[in-house]
Formats: sequence, structure tokens, C-alpha cells
Amino acid sequence: KKETVVLAYSGGLDTSCILVWLIEQGYKEFVEEFIWPAVQANARYEERYLLGTALARPCIARKLIEVAKKESATYISHGATGKGNDQVRFEIACYALMPTIKVIAPWRMESFLSRFAGRNELLQYATEKNIPVTATKAKSWSMDANLMHISYESGELEDPATEAASDMYLMTTDPENAPDIPERISIEFKNGFPIKVINKDGTVVDDALKLFLHLNEIGGKHGIGRIDIIENRFIGMKSRGCYETPAGTILQAAHIDIELLTMDREVFKLKQYLKTQFESQVYNGMWFSPECEYTRSCIALSQEVVEGTVHLKLYKGGVYVTARESPRSLYNQDLTHFSMYIEGDHNASDAAGFIRLNALRSREFQRLKR
Amino acid sequence: KKETVVLAYSGGLDTSCILVWLIEQGYKEFVEEFIWPAVQANARYEERYLLGTALARPCIARKLIEVAKKESATYISHGATGKGNDQVRFEIACYALMPTIKVIAPWRMESFLSRFAGRNELLQYATEKNIPVTATKAKSWSMDANLMHISYESGELEDPATEAASDMYLMTTDPENAPDIPERISIEFKNGFPIKVINKDGTVVDDALKLFLHLNEIGGKHGIGRIDIIENRFIGMKSRGCYETPAGTILQAAHIDIELLTMDREVFKLKQYLKTQFESQVYNGMWFSPECEYTRSCIALSQEVVEGTVHLKLYKGGVYVTARESPRSLYNQDLTHFSMYIEGDHNASDAAGFIRLNALRSREFQRLKR
Amino acid sequence: KKETVVLAYSGGLDTSCILVWLIEQGYKEFVEEFIWPAVQANARYEERYLLGTALARPCIARKLIEVAKKESATYISHGATGKGNDQVRFEIACYALMPTIKVIAPWRMESFLSRFAGRNELLQYATEKNIPVTATKAKSWSMDANLMHISYESGELEDPATEAASDMYLMTTDPENAPDIPERISIEFKNGFPIKVINKDGTVVDDALKLFLHLNEIGGKHGIGRIDIIENRFIGMKSRGCYETPAGTILQAAHIDIELLTMDREVFKLKQYLKTQFESQVYNGMWFSPECEYTRSCIALSQEVVEGTVHLKLYKGGVYVTARESPRSLYNQDLTHFSMYIEGDHNASDAAGFIRLNALRSREFQRLKR
Amino acid sequence: KKETVVLAYSGGLDTSCILVWLIEQGYKEFVEEFIWPAVQANARYEERYLLGTALARPCIARKLIEVAKKESATYISHGATGKGNDQVRFEIACYALMPTIKVIAPWRMESFLSRFAGRNELLQYATEKNIPVTATKAKSWSMDANLMHISYESGELEDPATEAASDMYLMTTDPENAPDIPERISIEFKNGFPIKVINKDGTVVDDALKLFLHLNEIGGKHGIGRIDIIENRFIGMKSRGCYETPAGTILQAAHIDIELLTMDREVFKLKQYLKTQFESQVYNGMWFSPECEYTRSCIALSQEVVEGTVHLKLYKGGVYVTARESPRSLYNQDLTHFSMYIEGDHNASDAAGFIRLNALRSREFQRLKR
Repeated sequence: KKETVVLAYSGGLDTSCILVWLIEQGYKEFVEEFIWPAVQANARYEERYLLGTALARPCIARKLIEVAKKESATYISHGATGKGNDQVRFEIACYALMPTIKVIAPWRMESFLSRFAGRNELLQYATEKNIPVTATKAKSWSMDANLMHISYESGELEDPATEAASDMYLMTTDPENAPDIPERISIEFKNGFPIKVINKDGTVVDDALKLFLHLNEIGGKHGIGRIDIIENRFIGMKSRGCYETPAGTILQAAHIDIELLTMDREVFKLKQYLKTQFESQVYNGMWFSPECEYTRSCIALSQEVVEGTVHLKLYKGGVYVTARESPRSLYNQDLTHFSMYIEGDHNASDAAGFIRLNALRSREFQRLKR
Repeated sequence: KKETVVLAYSGGLDTSCILVWLIEQGYKEFVEEFIWPAVQANARYEERYLLGTALARPCIARKLIEVAKKESATYISHGATGKGNDQVRFEIACYALMPTIKVIAPWRMESFLSRFAGRNELLQYATEKNIPVTATKAKSWSMDANLMHISYESGELEDPATEAASDMYLMTTDPENAPDIPERISIEFKNGFPIKVINKDGTVVDDALKLFLHLNEIGGKHGIGRIDIIENRFIGMKSRGCYETPAGTILQAAHIDIELLTMDREVFKLKQYLKTQFESQVYNGMWFSPECEYTRSCIALSQEVVEGTVHLKLYKGGVYVTARESPRSLYNQDLTHFSMYIEGDHNASDAAGFIRLNALRSREFQRLKR
Repeated sequence: KKETVVLAYSGGLDTSCILVWLIEQGYKEFVEEFIWPAVQANARYEERYLLGTALARPCIARKLIEVAKKESATYISHGATGKGNDQVRFEIACYALMPTIKVIAPWRMESFLSRFAGRNELLQYATEKNIPVTATKAKSWSMDANLMHISYESGELEDPATEAASDMYLMTTDPENAPDIPERISIEFKNGFPIKVINKDGTVVDDALKLFLHLNEIGGKHGIGRIDIIENRFIGMKSRGCYETPAGTILQAAHIDIELLTMDREVFKLKQYLKTQFESQVYNGMWFSPECEYTRSCIALSQEVVEGTVHLKLYKGGVYVTARESPRSLYNQDLTHFSMYIEGDHNASDAAGFIRLNALRSREFQRLKR
Repeated sequence: KKETVVLAYSGGLDTSCILVWLIEQGYKEFVEEFIWPAVQANARYEERYLLGTALARPCIARKLIEVAKKESATYISHGATGKGNDQVRFEIACYALMPTIKVIAPWRMESFLSRFAGRNELLQYATEKNIPVTATKAKSWSMDANLMHISYESGELEDPATEAASDMYLMTTDPENAPDIPERISIEFKNGFPIKVINKDGTVVDDALKLFLHLNEIGGKHGIGRIDIIENRFIGMKSRGCYETPAGTILQAAHIDIELLTMDREVFKLKQYLKTQFESQVYNGMWFSPECEYTRSCIALSQEVVEGTVHLKLYKGGVYVTARESPRSLYNQDLTHFSMYIEGDHNASDAAGFIRLNALRSREFQRLKR
């Protein structure tokens, strides 16, 4: 009896093709259900990586499982390697969404591995069979592109001491070639979601998907969002990756700014902890896990107040917040003014007491040390 | 009986004058004892502020108390306002180091506050008395400069929706006016400390203080380290501040990169938690507290392995890591290579088991949800 | 013009009188709005204190402010001392709920302090004026009783090396005098709330307030919930307190057990972090703060699955969980059975891969150490 | 060519035999290198389990690897099941300490599993072959005993709704049969380590191993340290276990008490976080991981001040701290006394300012909510 296999391409531009197709079908799922929660979280794995690939995986896996169920497939197959994160992300998501699904992963099969000893054999095979691929022997790295970013790894990037080729990046202009004139935009948020981009010419983009693509375009033009990093894979080893994430970089700068205008200090601290957890969960492929659903719910709870507009300048790779305003601002100009004490709030001598009591433990500590 | 008062200027350029004097006296204390631990921590209060002022305060306070003890002073006096962080930082540090010290804080005294209703009265008084000050009515913000950064706040900056004047920043060139040619440098670290800057012409700077000043100069030239943020003061209110921190910005980018090459993933996560704690402790003036001493010790413990060289490109406000290398690298190229399985490490099928067991909880969770 | 002062007794049995009165009025607010969230959290400040006083304070403060608003009072006054936590808890809650309220705190007024140098002067004054108080010279400690617990502190308890008098405790039998026969009960939870106590004779208590009082009675009879601890006050100093919390102790043992049966491992870890934050927030009087409201919401989110029945044995001061069951149990007996591998879940060899990949970092680490 | 296999028994009393032998050889390694760090940490996995088995595993694994190296063995073999934690703990430790070692785990081998379908077949086989085992058909649970505790699981314990048999526990008297007279002891700590037990008759035990065994004996007599819990295994499933840990339970109660007398509040909070991490690391078999070594070092750093004597009463399953004293106490009786304000420390009005500024955020928050 023949069994059906649903095939996923994860290793290259194919992924972005699938996403293009999804877009054409009218889906915005990736932006609204996967990227927006990451924007709310200010997610940045190990302080740097904006999780572009990690966010796409559960979205694709969900689609795969939809297809698998429709086609009564018993297998899915993907081209992710046996040392990377993507196999983990695809499979954990698929197992979660369809417990009986089985996985065929050629890069973990001895027969496949013995046939293709490395990337070169694979490129040669592709040439022989006229399979079009982005990676060439000259440009030996592999890349993975989606709506949110392009990632580059392996090949000559495998040596962390080697600088990436200047013509590698495809989604962003080299900052050195970016426009000499800065560009100004404003982004409006509600519930921690970006709902509007206002351009300098007054035009407005307010559809989630179009807004994101617009920021990709404008950010790409100004060379925004390139990073070259060492990161820790879930599987236990380190790897080197280069990423370009124009819209994601702009949105994070803007979101964190409006958040600090509208969110209480201690709630922000709690959310910082949840953010760190969320980053690992997403990176490790745990999107559909109980802990990630819980973390997303808690983060979403914190965003109800995150509302307002951030003004930005984009220039040669840099995103500069210049000003911000919000109807829910917690910034109280009267309160801040250095010499004005408002009745009922606090008076000039309060700070002295505050300080002395906060100094108590340090004083005892230093006294006992002597 | 007359009592001695030791006077501290904290509100303006005076602070930097004191620091210049300290430098002339051969002290590097600020760089090595205060800035370096912050570099080790990757400290960035509320994800953005590099703590330039907060780090200087305990250094100055320690000096004040040295003087107070030498002069048998019973009081210190400072010019920090009654709503800001600096009063807290100065006083907690002084109380810790000299429990019997008393504080005169004019900005918390009713007699002073009723004489000077606001900044304008103060500027007028300064004009009348020929007291030179940086702030003018035209440029109404106040600034605080030290070796590490200049901060700008109040005056017209008090409205968070108003963009800062383009000529406000004094330590860095406007990125738009920065050189059109990028500059490349390398920074070498040992024990998490920067020990060497190697310039493109091969010249080397390896003295801690000179290294920091050199990075300030080169970073300043390329417009690096400007931020405009909303932040949460310890005292409970929000404020808006602009900062420029050229060397600090470069060092953090470099340090975090070499750290991720050499530090284990889970140790890095533990350290991320400690970093968050350290940021609040320093911001809140708790440098000499038991918890901050403990946190610094724990962070220092993690830095023994942080060693190696990071290669950087500086260009129009941006710091780009291009490559890195280390004798203590945990990056194992053989291990990473996607199709090579080394005997004893793990084999092709291990990942399947790893994934299936990591999926167990998610599968149960999604199953029970249905 | 005369202004109205609302008076709060916090220093003694009066608090419990107020609560008794509230009960008579049919309020259950304290149990359902303050104690239940603490049960859901498994709250235990500094690993030991169940927060009996800290939970009562915001409940009382809210009542005070209701009265103050009805009576158009401009002041509240309380008898909490100037070194304790209760002043902080009362006042922060009152300021939050009524920003214009002012506070009269005799124990922080020089005129009061100079009149009454210490507890003895106060006891003498009470005797002279025929004011009935629990504290006597013989029994010099002060106590604070409410529905949830009695706390004892100061007086001879101030020396942490002195054992508390055996007849001090009023709410619980000395374990040595408790019944020689254990008592068995079952507690049923839903949404993390206790909804039913089933006694050995089959009788059931299912009203929140009655359920709590019933557990107080039965727990008190068996000597459950006494602790004698050193704790850290918000104000920066350490103190010694003795507490007895019979129902709270039983409920925590039961709640944590049913939680571990029904809650995912990683959600539990996230909740452990939130619990630690919640404990400090409540202890420090921050019940009505943005962070505490946020933390309570997040904890409540985690409790939807916490449902089932815990069987307990109470005996001479001890609470022993003996068994538990739940319709939402995540405990899968088939999965656990040591030699049975279920198709689709995982197979015998999966663990080997899981282990080898989890060992990867440790192996590299130990290898590099040698 | 024949290869050498080193055999480890982990499934039963054998473990304790090995430990007895180690003791006879004069090793105290287990107590001083594994149990003491857990005492310092106040380790209690998921709020309840004292990690008795998890601490023994890396100790045994280290011994195994010593033997394997001496005998030039290429394999180790253990009897831990393929669903439990112990396989993980043994193997990760062994892989860390000897990267080239290979593992034979019969409970993960299809040939073994098909021969023995379950525990009954195994018991029958043991009977046939005259292999002495503790588990019988009547008493179907398995147990694991070591110096620190005995754990019981599987068999009839597999149903979490079934109460454990009253005669199951071997290390502790049933509290109901424990002495009617409480016993008093004192424990002295230095650097967070217990260094002395002083009995009521004045006799002293100060050797680490003897001290621990003495507390086991005395605690066992009084029925101390029994728990019956649901816990989350590393492998992703829940299990039910019963444990008895007499000395460990007493030591944790005492250690936490002296810690709160001598350790700063905020250091304690930091350490609470590290403790939670340590618990998972140890439970998951990560003793020799970089993160666990780091965590242990950080915890040890916090213990330098933890010194003093705790007085305890043991009675029918309960451990009651009655008093404590320390040369490094941070408890300052003068500071605490409710009406005494010491010059320089703080004065009566300081608390008012402290409170008002701490109320600032809550006040703004509640104001904006209305």
C-alpha cells in the first residue's frame, strides 16, 4: 500500500516561494500570527538575532499539516540538515499538531549521507540534473529567505574569522551605497501592534502585510538590519550566521520606544524576563508548546497599554528614534520637572527618606565588611 | 563650631573636569573599576542606556568620601535635583562608604526651591553673578559629561515629542557628516576585558585608559553611540534622555560577539539574568550594595573564558562586526558541518530521538486541547 | 475647618475584629480576592512566610478608602510603627486608591515618640486609661490576628536566639498536644481555587469562606502551620516573626500537588518565577501596583488547567499528601511505564539520541578544561 | 577482540552497597562534594524533591569512569530504564568525563525489551535464577537507596490516586510510631556547610560523613522527611515518586534559617534564582555541565557569610526551628526596635518619604485606570 508524503523545502529560496504563494492566496498569517507576537516581545535571541527563520518554521509546519490531513498523508519530508535547528522546528511543530505524523529527513539517513558526502557533491548533482539552486561553488553559502529576512550560513561562512562577501546580501543595500539623504517615517502602534506607517509625504500604509513589506522595502533601501553573529543552536553547538531583517529591525526600535513611554517600569522588567524565555522557546522550535502559548498570552496581556506613534530617521544602516507621543503616555512632564513639587504627589524632603532607607542594607553591609 | 562640607558638582561639565583632574593624577579607576565591569556585563539599562552617568557616580562618591575623611568633613553637598537619579546614586554610595556622613542637597531644600522657581531663574542668577554654565536660555537642556558619555535632558527635551536639536551632541559627529569611508579596527579581549585595539595601520593601543579614549575619538568621528530614549527613574517616574557613548557602544558590540564565541550557551543565559539585575542595581545607585558586589563577582566568574579578537567596521553611526577569532573558541567547525558525523559525538539518527522527546510535552498539550 | 480622619487599627486583635465584622456583613472579599490568588501562586515569601498579614493589608486599605470617600475624609490614620512593613502596605494601597488622601502615622511623629519611649510606656498608659490590650508585660510580644493567621513579633521575640514561649500560639494546638489519631480530608480544586473540602465522614464544605474557616479549625486542632523565622522587611532590616497559618499551610500543600499533576513542566517553571515576584510585591505592599495586577493576571492564566482532588492526612503538625486524581491529569500511566513504548510517542532508541545531544556541551566543556 | 564493559547497578539497593563500599574506603566525596552544595543551595526540585538520587548519579558516574579508565574499558553498562531520569544522568556524566566511552543500556535494547515484557517477567526471571532482589510481586514498587535517601516508584505507585503502603518506607519511622517526646539538637554552620551537630546531651558530631549519618539516624527515628509527589522528568513525562530524606530535610530547614539571619535580602533573591536553575541542572543530569559548575561557583560565593548555629526540635515528622544565633548576624536588634531611631540611620519621617515615592507608580497606574 502506497503512503502519501508531504514535501517541505526548507533549505533555500523555496521557502520564500511558498510564502509568496501563500501571500497570493491572501494569507497574512505569518505577519499577524507569528511576526507580530515577536514584535510585541522585542524578541532578539541572544541579544541579536531577530528570529526570522525560527518564526517562519511553525507557520510552514502548520500549513504542511493542513495539507497532510487533507491528503491523508502519513509522512512529511523536509530537507533540513541533521545538525541544524530547522529539523527540530519543523518536526516538533508537526508532531504537536498531528501526533501520528512520521518524518522523512534525508539529511539524517545513512543512505543519503553516504551518497552525498558534502555540499560539493550536492551542487554537482544539481548541475548534472539541471536543478536550479542559488548556492554555487563560487558562492558556497546556503541561504534561507522569507518575508521577514534572509539568513546566510555554511560554506565559506563556516569560518567565523572570514568576513562575509560584500555582495552576499540580497535584501538590503550595502549601507555604503545607501542614499545620502536620511528618510523620515512615523509608525503608529495599538495593543503593541504596528497599525500604521506614515511616510514623509503623508501617505499611509495600514494593512499588516503591506505595512511590513513597505518597511522591508524602505529599510532595505537604507541598508538596515544586517548582522553577522555567532549563535547557539538548540542541538548544542555554535554556528555562525548572517542575517538581514530590515522591517523587523525598524519595528523593534520603534516598539521598544513606545513601550517604554506607556508601560510601567516593573511590568517592563517582568516582560523582559518573559521575552528571554520566548526567544529561546521560538528559537528551539517550541512555538506550539504549552510554555510558548502561555508566554505569548502573558506578553499579549502586557501590550494593551502600548499605543502611540514613534518618529524615526533611517540613514545608512541606522534606525534613529527622534520623538514619540501617546494618548496613554505614563510620562508626566509636571512630575518630572526638576524643581516643581505637586501637592499630594511628593514633596522635596521625600527623596531624602527614600534614599536613606534604600541605603540601609548597603550601609550595614559595608560596615560589617570593615 | 564650624563643620566642613565637601562639595560635589554633579549637574554639568564639572563632573568631567573632576574626571580630567583625576586622569591627570594618573587614576584609571573609572575605566578599570567601573566601566570594565559594565563591558563584561553587556550592561544596557532597559535594553538601551549604557549607564554612562550611573557608572560615574559611585566613582565620584568614593573620591568625595576619601576627601571628606581626610578633611574630617561631616557633610557632603551636591547639586543633583530632588527628582532625579543622581541624588540617589551619590547619597547611597556616600552613606555606604561613610555611615556618619550627612548630606546637604539644595534642590531638596524649601529655602532654595522658593528662591529659584525653575531653570530660568537659575540661568538668570548665573548671568548676574557671572557664573559660567553650558546651559543657556537658547539651549535650555542640561548636560552631564564624563569620560564615558554625555547625557542631555530637561529643557526642551522634556517634551518627548520634540526632536532634539541637531547641534546638541558634542562628543560625536552627526552620522550624516561622518566620513564616507568606513574604518576598520580590531579589539582583543582577555578575561572579558578589552586589552588591545589594533588599528588598520597596525598601530596598537593597549593601556586601558588610552584604549578607551582612543575608541571615544574614533567612535566619535564616525558618529557612533547616539540614542534618544524614554527611561524609568528609580524614583518612580519616567524621563527622556539623549546620550552619546562612542567607546561604550563599540565595546559592547565587540564584547558580546567574542562572548558568544567562547561562552557556553547556558552560562550565557544565566549571565543574561545577572546582567539584567546588574543594570538595575547600577542605575539605582546600588554599586556598593551587597547585591551589586555579589552580581559583579558572579559576572566576573563567567569571563575567564572570554578571550579573543573581534574585527569591526565603523561607518556613519554603525558598528559592524565582520569576523572574530579566539584560542578559546567553542565553535567547532567539524561539529557544525552539516553532513559530517564524528564518531563518538553523535550520529545521524540522534537528532530524531532528541526531537521526539523534546516534542513529547507539546504533543500531549495539543492533544489535550483538542 | 475640621477635617475627617478615618482610623485603622493595625497593631493588634482589632484587625481581626474588623474582619469578623466584615464577615458578619457577608463579605468574603478577603478570602476570594486576596487569599485565593496567593493559593494559586503557592506564595511563600523567602521560602517560608505565607503572607497572612501582607494579604490582609490591601483588603483593609480598600475598605478604609471606601469609608474615607463616603465620609469625605481627607486623612487616614493607622497605628503601624515607623520601622515595619504595615505602614508601607497601608499607605501605598491608600495612595494608590485615593491619590489625595493624607496619612497620620503617630509612630512616625516626634511628639508621639517622645511621649512613649517604648512598649512599656505604652502598656502603662493603656493600664492607666483602662484600654484593653492583648500584650502584657509578662507576655510582651505583639500580635496581629486575622482570618488567615496570627503573627507574633517584638518583645522577647526580638532576640532571635530566644525560643518563643510554648503558650504563645493561639490559633493552633501545640503539635505535642494534638490528637494521636491522624485525620484524613480531601480537597477539590478548579481553576486553581479550592472549591470543596470533603471530610472523612463524607460531609462537604464548599463555600469559600466556610471552607477556609473549616480548614483553620481542623488544621488548628492538628497543630498545623507554625513557623518561627527571620525575614527581610521592605524597609531594609531583618526581623524575627512567629506565625501560625493552619488553613493556608494545608491549602498550599494540596494546591502544589494538584498543580504538578495538571500543569506542564515549563509552564510551572515560568510560574515559579512569577510566584517569586508576586511574593515580594505582596510583602512590600504593592498589591494595587501595575506589576502586581499584571503578575496576578499571568498567574491566573496558568490556573485554568489546575483541577482535581488531593487526599491528605493531617497529623501532629504535619500535612501529608497521600494521593491525588484529576480529569485533566497530564500524568500518562502508559507513557511512564518503564518498558512499554507506544507507537508514535517515542521508541526505545530515542532516549540515546536525546542524551547524546544533551551531553554535547558538557563534553566539549570538560574536554576544553583538560 | 574483546572489549571491557564497566557495569553499574542503578536500579536498587546495589547503589547503596557501592556507596557503603566507598565509605569503607574512606571516601566522603558524596557528602562533601555533592550533598553539601545542595544544602548550600537549599535545593528542592519543583518545590519538594531534595534530589537524593540526582545527586548520587554524577558521584557514581565519576567512579565508573575512574574504573573504566583504569581497566581500559570502552563501554559502561547500566540498568536504568529507557524512560527515566537515571539513564540521562549516568550517561551525560560519563560522556562529559570520558568523551570516547560507549554505553550499553539493556532497557533500551529491543532484544532485551522483547525478552522481558514487564516487571513481572523480570521478577520471575530473578526467582528462576536465584537473583536476590528487594522488589517482590507483593511489594511491586522499585526502590533506590543511597546515603541520602530512599526513593520508591513504579509498581502500584504508578497510579497517583493509590496511597502508598504504610510499610513501604525503610529509612524513617512512621510519624505515628515516632517517639512521643521531641528531641532537640543544634546545628552549626560555616561557609554554608554544616560543621557540627550538638545533641541535647552535649555530645558533638563534627565529621562531615558522621554528621550526615547521625542526622539520618535521628531524623529517621522521628519520622522526618517523607514525601509523596508528582514530578516532571527531564524526558518530558510526569511520574510519581515517594522519598524519605531525613538528614537532608533537617539540614535544609536549618540552613535556610541561618542563611536568612546572615545573608542580605537582595543577595538571597539572586540566590533563589540560581537555586531554581541548580535544581533543574542537577535533576536533569547536568552536574558536570558548564552551567552547573558556574551555578555552583556562584552559590558558593554567596555562602561565605552563612555562619552560626540553629536550634531545632524534631517531633513526629516535623522539624521546628526554635532559635538561632550568629557572629555574622545581620539582624540588628537596635535597628528593629519599633520606636527607637538611631542618629545617622534614619529618622522617624524617612519612612513617609520612602512610602510616598514607592507609591508613585501605583498611584499613576490607578489614576489612569479610572
